[in-house]
Amino acid sequence: MSQEQFLSELISSLGADVAQIAGDVPERYWTDWSGTPPQQPLALVRPRSTEEVSVLMRLCTAHRIAVVPQGGLTGLAGAAVPTQGAVAVSMERFNVIEDINIQTGLMQVQAGVTLQTVQEAAVNAGMVFGVDLGARGSCQIGGNVSTNAGGNGVLQHGMMREQVLGLEVVLADGSVLPMLRPMIKNNTGYDLKQFFIGAEGTLGIITRVLLRLRPAPQATATTLVAMPDFDSALAVLKRMQSRFGNSVAAYELMWDSFVQASQAWLKLNAPFEQRYPLLALINVDGKQESQLQDDIQQVLEQAMEAGEVLDAIVAQSVAQAQTLWKLREAPAELNNNMHPAINFDVSLPQADIGRFAEACEAAFTARWPQKHALYFGHVGDGNLHVSVDGKTVNGECDAVEAELYRLVGEFKGSVSAEHGIGLHKKPYLQKSRTVEELNAMRAIKNALDPLGLMNPGKVF
Amino acid sequence: MSQEQFLSELISSLGADVAQIAGDVPERYWTDWSGTPPQQPLALVRPRSTEEVSVLMRLCTAHRIAVVPQGGLTGLAGAAVPTQGAVAVSMERFNVIEDINIQTGLMQVQAGVTLQTVQEAAVNAGMVFGVDLGARGSCQIGGNVSTNAGGNGVLQHGMMREQVLGLEVVLADGSVLPMLRPMIKNNTGYDLKQFFIGAEGTLGIITRVLLRLRPAPQATATTLVAMPDFDSALAVLKRMQSRFGNSVAAYELMWDSFVQASQAWLKLNAPFEQRYPLLALINVDGKQESQLQDDIQQVLEQAMEAGEVLDAIVAQSVAQAQTLWKLREAPAELNNNMHPAINFDVSLPQADIGRFAEACEAAFTARWPQKHALYFGHVGDGNLHVSVDGKTVNGECDAVEAELYRLVGEFKGSVSAEHGIGLHKKPYLQKSRTVEELNAMRAIKNALDPLGLMNPGKVF
Repeated sequence: MSQEQFLSELISSLGADVAQIAGDVPERYWTDWSGTPPQQPLALVRPRSTEEVSVLMRLCTAHRIAVVPQGGLTGLAGAAVPTQGAVAVSMERFNVIEDINIQTGLMQVQAGVTLQTVQEAAVNAGMVFGVDLGARGSCQIGGNVSTNAGGNGVLQHGMMREQVLGLEVVLADGSVLPMLRPMIKNNTGYDLKQFFIGAEGTLGIITRVLLRLRPAPQATATTLVAMPDFDSALAVLKRMQSRFGNSVAAYELMWDSFVQASQAWLKLNAPFEQRYPLLALINVDGKQESQLQDDIQQVLEQAMEAGEVLDAIVAQSVAQAQTLWKLREAPAELNNNMHPAINFDVSLPQADIGRFAEACEAAFTARWPQKHALYFGHVGDGNLHVSVDGKTVNGECDAVEAELYRLVGEFKGSVSAEHGIGLHKKPYLQKSRTVEELNAMRAIKNALDPLGLMNPGKVF
Repeated sequence: MSQEQFLSELISSLGADVAQIAGDVPERYWTDWSGTPPQQPLALVRPRSTEEVSVLMRLCTAHRIAVVPQGGLTGLAGAAVPTQGAVAVSMERFNVIEDINIQTGLMQVQAGVTLQTVQEAAVNAGMVFGVDLGARGSCQIGGNVSTNAGGNGVLQHGMMREQVLGLEVVLADGSVLPMLRPMIKNNTGYDLKQFFIGAEGTLGIITRVLLRLRPAPQATATTLVAMPDFDSALAVLKRMQSRFGNSVAAYELMWDSFVQASQAWLKLNAPFEQRYPLLALINVDGKQESQLQDDIQQVLEQAMEAGEVLDAIVAQSVAQAQTLWKLREAPAELNNNMHPAINFDVSLPQADIGRFAEACEAAFTARWPQKHALYFGHVGDGNLHVSVDGKTVNGECDAVEAELYRLVGEFKGSVSAEHGIGLHKKPYLQKSRTVEELNAMRAIKNALDPLGLMNPGKVF
């Protein structure tokens, strides 16, 4: 039988340390943070080099065995969950920072390095890395690239795509694309690396990444602002951006339902004496901290006079800033507190986000009186997250999804801003893409992976 | 005969105003600024809508007729020059700015709008567009996207790719990809628009572009700085960037040979009383002009003490700044003054640019004593241009190219930073791309254009 033959060749090529067979695969590789039912893979391979990935893919191509690339398994769309009969490929052992160049501002890393390790190495070199998100301690750079990760830094630095200067990728047939040339400008044929960013492992396995770092700000000020409604939140964002330009580094909006959940789950003190409809966590970079705090105070006073701001805290220390940011950490606790958590990650025209949240709330309440939905997001980027407690909707997850994505279609939004399609959003992909676009994507998939071995069943 | 049948259907479908046959096609559509020998196309089509482009492509697919997309015909690599038996498709009539939204900072345009029109519309709306280059008055946005244009603004805003939020593209079979959704974050399957940026018209015809605008700086200061050598030029760039960060908007380096040519061809006064090895034109953005000038003066004084700067002019008016920038305009005169101009556009590791220029000069002088090569470029981006007067090398253009690209390979550079591959750099593409990369590009080309009708013979 070909599968047995494959497994025997796999062990003899890569060794029992790198390749483990079915029953030996620890359960933590069977699923990810998306809540997808676990699936034991045919085997788990944890390569220590690009060459080992290439050997694996040549074997898989010879035996027609599919692979599922895995990073830190923190994905929320199920893209890294094994499929039956497929080999899971975890990059966790290929995790060395190979080079940091302060002169050029570039860092070359292996795909299995965690985001937090990259962030810390950048800071130690006197710079910063432009992407930050809650799963930073577990998620890996290869996964961040494969999902074109977003997070808190997009407003200032763009998504993961804009931090990537080069990639090394292994294709389904085992050939290696060494697209790691350290040049900002290199228009020599198609910019192939762009194809693999956000492809969720369906076109190849990312093995190395050449990252662009950003200059470290000399000072950062954090503010928590209470506001009466969404339009005020947008008005305050505009005020901040017109005063501080691209130095507005984060603008995270939290509806009261989210704030209450965060306080309860993380056992945090309430930041204000009373509850407000909306809170925004704002980071602004600058040259000198106390000056920056004064400037922010000035903008806030104007916004207060205009009725856009009801209360505000400008952090006076790093510790206080960290305490304020804790409020934003509830998403890490969703799976422990919602049964199950039905998570959404949608993009909308910025001006419509408030009306969209209200429309969702109205639709949910009409059908399930005991609703429990949290609203929060990277509003500066037009990105809203919604989390619904499955228990409160009688486990009718499909109906919740159908309702919310119907509204996304109505508001001309996108069904995935930053989490990707994976398994969970496949039924709704056509709400954000036309038939012609899906045909073009399939043609490209067939061109680079003609046997359909790379993460089959995901995205499409 | 199928070609006659095609032409007759072409005229009956699109009308004699939109489609002109061979002998009626004005000569200006036969070639571009690259100096490629002119070629009369089978027909010229100048569509006024996406629908007309789609009709054309359905006809071409039915009759197996190739097309060559044309923008402003200012390309320097020959990508828009007609090939025998192909239809030239000029986008010049599809040239309306369809929408400018100050709130979102987005502008939607048809592909035939010139870069300068986009720039002016952005300024009129109180913003700026991030790409600028010498051909601004003639080149079109569709061509800028197809070549992933660079120019003077890359240091601050990135290349054309980073200004593009959406594209509308017509594929070879006439199907339309409407990728114009105005969302910053939209991870729903492959980011298809990326594939067409820099593809030089070999994958589809770009018909509409959704552009990101940038906030206008409140003030800009221009400086011309004289320096003794390349390492000093890099040191001054670092000083400027560490003082002004991302507000350093341009840093254009000109070797003395270039400065002399510019003065002679454009009849300009010499900016300094004596000649210097290198001049840099620097733009810095800020809040307040006189403060900015003072700050720059301070940086220059430190650089002078360190021996990195020999002389400098800080422009005291917009008129003086424009006069200084005239020095950088020689490239528009290359074809009038060199016979022919052999132009290079290479990327190199930034620290090696000076040594590379010296190595070129040494190689040229060894073979052709009466050399005349100009060196200039966007050094902040690692991009160097070299122009050699064909007459001074006895017309041995191929030998000049072979010599220079041999050095590019030796220095691990790229044969095209921003001009693209087109026809002229095809023989040298493999110096910057591996066999595996070229195979992947061909696979993608075949996937989207299986009949090979889109700009055949270009890039590959």
